[in-house]
Amino acid sequence: MSTPDHFRLYVGDAAVAGIDPAHRGIAYGDGLFETMRVHGGAIPWWDRHWARLQSGAARLDLRLPDAAFAAREAAAMAQAGREGVLKLICSRGPGGRGYAPGPQADSHWQLAWHLLPVAAPSEGLTLRWCATRLARQPLLAGLKHCNRLEQVLARAEWADAAASERDADEGLLCDTAGHVICATAANVFVLRAGRWETPALAQCGVAGVCRGVLLDALGAQETVLTPGDVDAADAVFLCNAVRGILPVARLAQRRWTLHPATAQARRLLGDVHPAFVPEIS
Amino acid sequence: MSTPDHFRLYVGDAAVAGIDPAHRGIAYGDGLFETMRVHGGAIPWWDRHWARLQSGAARLDLRLPDAAFAAREAAAMAQAGREGVLKLICSRGPGGRGYAPGPQADSHWQLAWHLLPVAAPSEGLTLRWCATRLARQPLLAGLKHCNRLEQVLARAEWADAAASERDADEGLLCDTAGHVICATAANVFVLRAGRWETPALAQCGVAGVCRGVLLDALGAQETVLTPGDVDAADAVFLCNAVRGILPVARLAQRRWTLHPATAQARRLLGDVHPAFVPEIS
Repeated sequence: MSTPDHFRLYVGDAAVAGIDPAHRGIAYGDGLFETMRVHGGAIPWWDRHWARLQSGAARLDLRLPDAAFAAREAAAMAQAGREGVLKLICSRGPGGRGYAPGPQADSHWQLAWHLLPVAAPSEGLTLRWCATRLARQPLLAGLKHCNRLEQVLARAEWADAAASERDADEGLLCDTAGHVICATAANVFVLRAGRWETPALAQCGVAGVCRGVLLDALGAQETVLTPGDVDAADAVFLCNAVRGILPVARLAQRRWTLHPATAQARRLLGDVHPAFVPEIS
Repeated sequence: MSTPDHFRLYVGDAAVAGIDPAHRGIAYGDGLFETMRVHGGAIPWWDRHWARLQSGAARLDLRLPDAAFAAREAAAMAQAGREGVLKLICSRGPGGRGYAPGPQADSHWQLAWHLLPVAAPSEGLTLRWCATRLARQPLLAGLKHCNRLEQVLARAEWADAAASERDADEGLLCDTAGHVICATAANVFVLRAGRWETPALAQCGVAGVCRGVLLDALGAQETVLTPGDVDAADAVFLCNAVRGILPVARLAQRRWTLHPATAQARRLLGDVHPAFVPEIS
């Protein structure tokens, strides 16, 4: 369990000592979050994270703290921690009982410091297919909102799975129409006919910050993918803003060796930001 | 804004002074809730509320506090308040960063006291159709879970609507397949061919406690309903465990006068529990 030392709590532009039990994050998951890498005391892509938060806040009509104040607070925590993960959660303030958002209350938000996750296996990730399917909800698609029970259920599939499956590193999710969308905590890219593709997120899924960087850097295409398309792909990788590009070596019965295009994509991402320079590839 | 006096906070079977910022209710809406009427210092249908919570907790693999302890705490708060609304939220305890639920941490839960809502208009409710549609997710359907952004978006539709629509009391929601499911904070029953029907909730919606009571008491049927079916119904009412049966008088252009079957249903519910005896009907 994380200790309270790892958290800083705020209401609007003021630090506070505790959490108001009436804020709507607890009751409704009425909030947004960002999970950010900290490298050498700085936050890669802070501007992109903040832009996504702003875009989500506009869609949910959620008030954010002052941008400059939030950036200063996050930077101070990153500077102190040097290497790790910084998570920001912005919840809608209290509004009494009932779903009506009411007048725009100040954001109740927090910064949390976490250790870097354990290094991915050097031979590549082992994935499984999740039985959990994502609901199609265009009103929330793309947002990194705090309604994450689907991800909790999906991730629980292999926390409790039989010993033979316990070694899966991540799980791929389809939506209820059978289209591949993402992993539980990462986006997915596949190489098909020499071109990188990633699922379109008009119906569900989170539009990851690293995904956005790679769409530009790789000239990748958003498309509709089936599980068969992934299986037939020449290469597959997962990505997120904490770990960068993670090559996939196994998915159920399928095996991939590291593709030169994946190694090149990792070098490209390392050129974009030194936090993501591949160790050896 | 509610004052802290209105809340009691717990971890497992112990009262605590504050909220752990790491609990997963805030991050993921990883929890369940119950909204209960308090009448004469008692809680109608406590056993049904607890049974629903247990059923939801089993589906989400969420640990609940001890049933007898929770019942005593809720009863004490009801006894002190006499007339009002008691809301219970059970969130999954902290588990570090990431979606994996991890070992079953003690529930972080709270009881909140609220005033009764303003009385419904004696002539019946005015409803609107919400543009927001509910996603179809059988894994979460029926549960009163804390992922409620769809309801927040739906309820915001008329908080900000033009003055001419501002007098809507509630909104009806369809799912993305176009089937009528519920109101934002109530279930719906319609009278068709002399029989009460209510939407089946296999794909989405909350299986309300009052809905469950009325399915039994009225011999009602669960079915698939379109907006046209509701429009053509002989009578419509909403219901929930706080307000009982609320007759509907208007829905867009449609008008209904109070149907004898609705008046009879209200008397029936009043026989089931004195909290719901209709004042005049």
